[in-house]
Amino acid sequence: MSDQDKGYITEASMTDLWNLWITELHQGKSGLTFKVSRILESVQSDFQRIEVIETEDFGTTLVLYGSLMASEKDTNAYNEMIAHVPLFVHPKPEEVLIIGGGDIGSATNVLMHPEVGRCTVCEIDKMVVDVSKKYFPRLTKGLADPRCNMVYQDGKLFVKDAKEKFDVVILDLSDPVGPAADLFQKSFHQQVHDMLNKDGILIAQSESPLFNQETVKMMYKNLKEIFPIVRMYTCHMPIYPSCLWSFAFCSKKYDPLEDFDAARYENTNLSDCQYYNDQIHFASFALPTYVQKLIE
Amino acid sequence: MSDQDKGYITEASMTDLWNLWITELHQGKSGLTFKVSRILESVQSDFQRIEVIETEDFGTTLVLYGSLMASEKDTNAYNEMIAHVPLFVHPKPEEVLIIGGGDIGSATNVLMHPEVGRCTVCEIDKMVVDVSKKYFPRLTKGLADPRCNMVYQDGKLFVKDAKEKFDVVILDLSDPVGPAADLFQKSFHQQVHDMLNKDGILIAQSESPLFNQETVKMMYKNLKEIFPIVRMYTCHMPIYPSCLWSFAFCSKKYDPLEDFDAARYENTNLSDCQYYNDQIHFASFALPTYVQKLIE
Repeated sequence: MSDQDKGYITEASMTDLWNLWITELHQGKSGLTFKVSRILESVQSDFQRIEVIETEDFGTTLVLYGSLMASEKDTNAYNEMIAHVPLFVHPKPEEVLIIGGGDIGSATNVLMHPEVGRCTVCEIDKMVVDVSKKYFPRLTKGLADPRCNMVYQDGKLFVKDAKEKFDVVILDLSDPVGPAADLFQKSFHQQVHDMLNKDGILIAQSESPLFNQETVKMMYKNLKEIFPIVRMYTCHMPIYPSCLWSFAFCSKKYDPLEDFDAARYENTNLSDCQYYNDQIHFASFALPTYVQKLIE
Repeated sequence: MSDQDKGYITEASMTDLWNLWITELHQGKSGLTFKVSRILESVQSDFQRIEVIETEDFGTTLVLYGSLMASEKDTNAYNEMIAHVPLFVHPKPEEVLIIGGGDIGSATNVLMHPEVGRCTVCEIDKMVVDVSKKYFPRLTKGLADPRCNMVYQDGKLFVKDAKEKFDVVILDLSDPVGPAADLFQKSFHQQVHDMLNKDGILIAQSESPLFNQETVKMMYKNLKEIFPIVRMYTCHMPIYPSCLWSFAFCSKKYDPLEDFDAARYENTNLSDCQYYNDQIHFASFALPTYVQKLIE
């Protein structure tokens, strides 16, 4: 390099300038931050911004409206826990409905159960499914299963108009902001209750018990007014705010621990599972004292 | 404000410029970030940098060598889990030794047990204790207990020279970098084994099972060569990297589940506990499948 070139950026040093981070904050005060190695997709659907990025620690990652939803290396805890907990409790989970869940991760786990006759996925945003299919082959494996019944519709309208009944309904929603906000309301939960068979189970993702305490309190209060059995369980999810995520197990009949079907667990192929197992099934219902107090 | 003053920063807008963040990264790739409202202390001891900061979400926070150690509002999961799990398993935990633990959080929890005759805390860095005493009255409550025996010494030397035997030893160490590195070695664990009574229990904090997998694998392999019973348990700790933290329960005789003393649990005042309870005691030993595989 001649003296007169000094001060210019060479090709090598330009490569080193790449320093992109995505940070998801809780009320602007604290959160998770991830170094981004590449942007794979950045599009706007009719409903939200959709990005697919590659993060250095968690691989290819789906980001909706700026919020991290799923990644290749996040242990898949959320999807496994939202699906297998109800599926091993309901003795005959033939008809399953997922509202939301456009990355298909929860449906793929539901479809590991041979007892399931049909898994309907009602996702408002087809573009989320299309993008997920392109970038997340493991998450979207279930799409190839003939029992997977995709419906692209607003979950609120689907539930309002539905004639059929379900054994298990899973509310696999994004946060109660944006398109999913109405689906966190009590009136919607009542409608879901009414579309369940008389021994049906509803699982609703119920946000972070550390960061979303007001939402958690209100949701459990409402759900307890609708279902006779309401229990919280949690998982560790490394890309979600606070890394602690909760689910409401709402049931007309079955208890999540007493009615766990150990024989069926032994006979189900869970070799793709990274997080869920029978011990975790039971343990996930034990809550730290500060979480117990929230939902008492 | 006259026209000629426009463009100057007014007092009000200067206040708004405060935008300080502390970010703790895993290998520079992802991590936790916290908005800092105030710096309360920033000193250099003989061993490390010590900061006390106020974060907006977690309140007053102790930071050693840039790593967040404890805060007012972190649920106290780490301190409660490292102390109560062994204390409710050992039937007569009279002599307890904590190596590290300069913020006194673990000792304060140990001293909730009336069975404990003496809790020796061997901390290399007196300045950590002094700073903690000044800023963390709840964590350091145990200092006022006459059974609390502070020793300011290198844990390695203390263990090498110790004549007495202990019922429970707790390795409440910072990460295996800096002053604590040697205390993660097998030879040190062997020495600790030898200073335990013949039914003694060792608890060692064993890092994040998500982010420190190589350390975890090596540590458990080594500990299993020393102790007949080695089990991992975990907790959710919102200010530690990945928010998932693990502990090695190493025992010469007692099983962490079978030997849990339910009667003593009922009779112990745990009203200061935010995280630990009897259900969590059992549940914390259930491990996600990917964690089980690490330590098989």
